[in-house]
Amino acid sequence: MRKIIIGVMGPGEKAKETDLQNAYELGKIIAQQGWVLLTGGRNVGVMDAASQGAKSANGLTIGILPNDKANGISEAVDIAIFTDMGNARNNINILSSHVVIACGMGAGTASEIALAVKGNKKVILLTDDVESQVFFPKLSPENVYIADSVEDVINTAKSIVDSN
Amino acid sequence: MRKIIIGVMGPGEKAKETDLQNAYELGKIIAQQGWVLLTGGRNVGVMDAASQGAKSANGLTIGILPNDKANGISEAVDIAIFTDMGNARNNINILSSHVVIACGMGAGTASEIALAVKGNKKVILLTDDVESQVFFPKLSPENVYIADSVEDVINTAKSIVDSN
Amino acid sequence: MRKIIIGVMGPGEKAKETDLQNAYELGKIIAQQGWVLLTGGRNVGVMDAASQGAKSANGLTIGILPNDKANGISEAVDIAIFTDMGNARNNINILSSHVVIACGMGAGTASEIALAVKGNKKVILLTDDVESQVFFPKLSPENVYIADSVEDVINTAKSIVDSN
Amino acid sequence: MRKIIIGVMGPGEKAKETDLQNAYELGKIIAQQGWVLLTGGRNVGVMDAASQGAKSANGLTIGILPNDKANGISEAVDIAIFTDMGNARNNINILSSHVVIACGMGAGTASEIALAVKGNKKVILLTDDVESQVFFPKLSPENVYIADSVEDVINTAKSIVDSN
Repeated sequence: MRKIIIGVMGPGEKAKETDLQNAYELGKIIAQQGWVLLTGGRNVGVMDAASQGAKSANGLTIGILPNDKANGISEAVDIAIFTDMGNARNNINILSSHVVIACGMGAGTASEIALAVKGNKKVILLTDDVESQVFFPKLSPENVYIADSVEDVINTAKSIVDSN
Repeated sequence: MRKIIIGVMGPGEKAKETDLQNAYELGKIIAQQGWVLLTGGRNVGVMDAASQGAKSANGLTIGILPNDKANGISEAVDIAIFTDMGNARNNINILSSHVVIACGMGAGTASEIALAVKGNKKVILLTDDVESQVFFPKLSPENVYIADSVEDVINTAKSIVDSN
Repeated sequence: MRKIIIGVMGPGEKAKETDLQNAYELGKIIAQQGWVLLTGGRNVGVMDAASQGAKSANGLTIGILPNDKANGISEAVDIAIFTDMGNARNNINILSSHVVIACGMGAGTASEIALAVKGNKKVILLTDDVESQVFFPKLSPENVYIADSVEDVINTAKSIVDSN
Repeated sequence: MRKIIIGVMGPGEKAKETDLQNAYELGKIIAQQGWVLLTGGRNVGVMDAASQGAKSANGLTIGILPNDKANGISEAVDIAIFTDMGNARNNINILSSHVVIACGMGAGTASEIALAVKGNKKVILLTDDVESQVFFPKLSPENVYIADSVEDVINTAKSIVDSN
């Protein structure tokens, strides 16, 4: 039977230290909830940190890779899905997640939040980027949540999962 | 030899009257410049208005459709490319455009601006949405331009095309 | 750490009884080997039968869906990946599989075998369709294997997995 | 108004001399009919030859590229659509063509024929590969045509276009 998948999106090479810490913690708690973690699968930034966190709690991790080759995958990814479709794979990330969490901000992450809203998915933002906290909720008040801590993210995710 | 393609992105069903007028005007001037117009191809909103504008000046129009069927295409589209990949086709829109113009704002448009920045494409915003005018230039000061009129958009597009 | 994924491809609505029996048996043995099963994820034909077989042996099952909605998914799919890209998702199926097994024959299956060959993946054919047994090995003698039983498929898959 | 697009698919680097000659001739006559030519867009093999042929008769040529960069494009392509989705772009090739012509045979071409059949498109085969002439018509007697000359292809294409 279909498992609950929670997507954690965020910057790769340019992730901040806070984003990495949050991502690790998010991955860990997602695993502890019995949820499956989905990320962009690469061995950098938020993707890697979240996957490492999930594995620290024996979770199951999926990586949706932009390329077609095994190099560059996070070692903490269990299930590697190779799309070979570059950034267009961001749409698969959000369509496959019951809840999307944006941890940090960047161009790829912004595209995922926008695609999530377009696809009518719930997105939770955990970031200190003030402009994004203003822009996205206005774009879709009903789909975008602003969280101020990992705990807040998880509580919001739980209530979204429970209401589905 | 490869023609210059200018992409005009913007809301569909939810486009404002000003966006539609701007889109029509943009399409017309793009055609007059000898450029090819690329849009999302549907028969609504900015896509349709820009395509109509381009045809009014005998331009060539391309529509990158999200579905696989001929229904719902703008009658002003000459070349219909069917992707059957939903919103993931937004990435093709921006990769295929020499310059991307965002005319108005919405979730799909926001995803295209973000994907353009991610793909290192130049994007020109023509919108009265103040929050997007703050968010996107901060995301990428080097790739995002804010324009305040159709004329301003075209002048910026010209200088980008000329510098390539 | 990345798990071994074996893809089982085959007809949906038009699958023959033999294909369904083979698919169930393949899914079961794949799970018993400790491998993860990947299919097209729908609740019909070879996809469904293979997934049911894998679950009968407590395996992990992934479904790469052509659409973006939860309806039509096999109940035996654990991890549902929604691509919303129609038949273009066939390329993801083969890129994500360490070994591709074609169980039965049809247009979608033929596209997957061809894409596998194009992507330099090993494919094992288990089908009574004689013409495909002639066409595909000629297309790529080094990538296409013809098997005459489920046992033969699994032995070939093992040797491919071991040699990687 | 939407133009008629004819897709010519065939091998790249491995194309035979006969395939190249046929492709050039096909491109030329397609242009003379007032149809738009669609190919995979690269500067090799059947894609390049067909595009060159179309340009020799002042036709309009579209290339659906597998990558995201301007290098490797046929100089005879007018409209370059960058998909950055590798072989999955083959599905866009066939969905966007009113009629698909397979000129020569190879793994990529075989995937396009199979995807065309799956997508219920008409495909005309012009190849000396005997096995494909047996396999594909059996896969779909109603969608696959075997032609024995460029003239035969064009006559068949005309009757398909006229009947739509």
